[in-house]
Amino acid sequence: MVSTLRSMTSGAGNPGSQSALRKLNEQRIVEALMAGPATQAELSRHTGLSTATVSNIVKVLHDASVVATEPTTSSGRRALRVRLNSNSAVAVGIDFGRRHLRVVLANLAYEVLAEESMSLPLGHQADVSITAAVDVLDRLIAETGVRREDIVGVGAGIPGPIDHRTGTVVQGAILPEWVGFQILSHLEERLRLPVFVDNDANLGALSEITWGPHNGVSNLMFVKIGSGIGAGLILDGALFYGHVGVTGEIGHMTISEHGLMCRCGNRGCLETVSSTTTMSELLSRGEPEPLTPDDIVHRALGGSPAALRVLDDAGLATGRALGAVANLINPEVIVIGGPLAELGELLLEPIRRGLLRHAVPLIGETTTVAMSALGARAEVLGAAALVFQNADIARHT
Amino acid sequence: MVSTLRSMTSGAGNPGSQSALRKLNEQRIVEALMAGPATQAELSRHTGLSTATVSNIVKVLHDASVVATEPTTSSGRRALRVRLNSNSAVAVGIDFGRRHLRVVLANLAYEVLAEESMSLPLGHQADVSITAAVDVLDRLIAETGVRREDIVGVGAGIPGPIDHRTGTVVQGAILPEWVGFQILSHLEERLRLPVFVDNDANLGALSEITWGPHNGVSNLMFVKIGSGIGAGLILDGALFYGHVGVTGEIGHMTISEHGLMCRCGNRGCLETVSSTTTMSELLSRGEPEPLTPDDIVHRALGGSPAALRVLDDAGLATGRALGAVANLINPEVIVIGGPLAELGELLLEPIRRGLLRHAVPLIGETTTVAMSALGARAEVLGAAALVFQNADIARHT
Repeated sequence: MVSTLRSMTSGAGNPGSQSALRKLNEQRIVEALMAGPATQAELSRHTGLSTATVSNIVKVLHDASVVATEPTTSSGRRALRVRLNSNSAVAVGIDFGRRHLRVVLANLAYEVLAEESMSLPLGHQADVSITAAVDVLDRLIAETGVRREDIVGVGAGIPGPIDHRTGTVVQGAILPEWVGFQILSHLEERLRLPVFVDNDANLGALSEITWGPHNGVSNLMFVKIGSGIGAGLILDGALFYGHVGVTGEIGHMTISEHGLMCRCGNRGCLETVSSTTTMSELLSRGEPEPLTPDDIVHRALGGSPAALRVLDDAGLATGRALGAVANLINPEVIVIGGPLAELGELLLEPIRRGLLRHAVPLIGETTTVAMSALGARAEVLGAAALVFQNADIARHT
Repeated sequence: MVSTLRSMTSGAGNPGSQSALRKLNEQRIVEALMAGPATQAELSRHTGLSTATVSNIVKVLHDASVVATEPTTSSGRRALRVRLNSNSAVAVGIDFGRRHLRVVLANLAYEVLAEESMSLPLGHQADVSITAAVDVLDRLIAETGVRREDIVGVGAGIPGPIDHRTGTVVQGAILPEWVGFQILSHLEERLRLPVFVDNDANLGALSEITWGPHNGVSNLMFVKIGSGIGAGLILDGALFYGHVGVTGEIGHMTISEHGLMCRCGNRGCLETVSSTTTMSELLSRGEPEPLTPDDIVHRALGGSPAALRVLDDAGLATGRALGAVANLINPEVIVIGGPLAELGELLLEPIRRGLLRHAVPLIGETTTVAMSALGARAEVLGAAALVFQNADIARHT
């Protein structure tokens, strides 16, 4: 299995090894406890792990203060009740955008302890936003009183694909200033914490199955429609990275063989038809200033025929691409995210129409398409979830 | 994780349970032994399992006669040398085709013990080929002297998608006579053995990473180009089934918005451009009889400009679809199978050209496209491999 691009200091390990297995089992126990306190026998039933394994893991988690235990009785017998110390492990999520930065502190119970977002100038260098992120993080730590030693790691999202072989941002990213940048090592050096990096669409997907309403869905695709279009894939319950870490590039599916030139060098890609950039170009003729995504949303909600037509065309084309994708990987849920999420059914309806038109009937009928309920916070919440999924929660002290 | 559609008698189990874990570890030991005999210490190093776990599993496998052990010395210390009893577990593979049936008996060392194929009339009912398969299997068992109790299961492949929720062949399959047929329960009843069913493209993919030259590749797509076009996906080392079990339907990706009608009810699907049926229609005008796939291969190898042009167009369109797919799941290897495999570079070259034209550059550069080396045997060998991946090898006696 290809692992998340992660800090070297935390050690990747052989996925079939005893330590990887221990961590997986630990994670299973912690997840079970997120639903509420439980006895060791209940944890064993719930996770399928033997009572001996549960007891060992509980001991390790207790020593690391991740859980608290207290004696109780169950069916008349003595038992040990286990409860999560939610604040014993804190994750930092950072969402680096083209013109924004968002930082969140979250605890093991998936509660947000603190959150801050700020604007950044378009075209800023990577260093600018990293410095800003460090400042914001220091302030949030001071304000909340979270102990630095309780922070198990930092998850960071950037709007572009990352080559997992080299740890660098790939050419063609929506953040051209970051291309070739060694994001992981720079963040580690500045933050002095275990760092996990992923692209924004992957983090959106992860947030939907952890923070979002699709908890427990095994096969989900998160599609971010913005100035670029990308997707994050949850397959068989985990983020999927493929061969070199570049997946979900549906923005570059050819929709129109001889269409407009795309920034990737091909023609007629989905992005040239359905991105907010293209929508803005189509709607800004004769306008004093180019429309922003917010402007598009307001016009459409206000009933502007031009805005509605542009959204219908963009939605249909997106649905066509999603039909091809659904035919391939048969997801249970497709979630649409990005700055147009407020449009709700106005955008979902043409997307569904396109999907049904182009998917194999059984697949079209069994795929749910929904808007993200997490809005602009999807990526930063996913970044925090990435930490809990990968950091060594019981070993951080 | 969604499991292979399998016999209820063999029990699926919770993927996180101790028994699923034991089976996974057993499989890891058996796989390590396929490379040759090894001491328990070597097995531990090779698999990452503890020496205690290795020792327990070896004992279970020994009791089931799956392995033989003998004392030896290693680095001057006493050790136990473990060797696979290759013939202690035999898998049956059956490939049900539109006009053929192929049966194979294979042992744990992935050696073919016996093999037979026969022709069947186009449009035959499912019952006809099942009866024929039972007869062939009985004959092969008698001829080889394999003991029935050593057969750990039967893998069966059919050329069409299977709905994993109901165990039936899905509407739109290339075998219309089989639609709605409860393939699994019928086979179990007739064979009285644990049965595992999958579609032909999935089995082709599995054969490439077990029998084929791509052993150990984690992300591979097998594309079968025949009268239909379908793909099997190996993702993170395992066959991928998605939400309801219908994946890899790339034959129904829209290539030409207003193209020919497809049997699925959509227009301009890849199958209407690149299937052998379409190639035959294009090349058979003025011919006394429609061309077979073999005829197409012979004409192309003989330099017929018409056949070469048809193959070039079909290859380019296939490459375009594969570009979209590679952008999504970033495979390491794409293998082309089916009756045109003999064409080699004549078909690969336009496919690669289409892929490079439509994939994101980094993905185009890092995806290997190759012809299947297993030819017409890919599906039946994959069916046997499906058994070894899913059957309870150490518990069959």
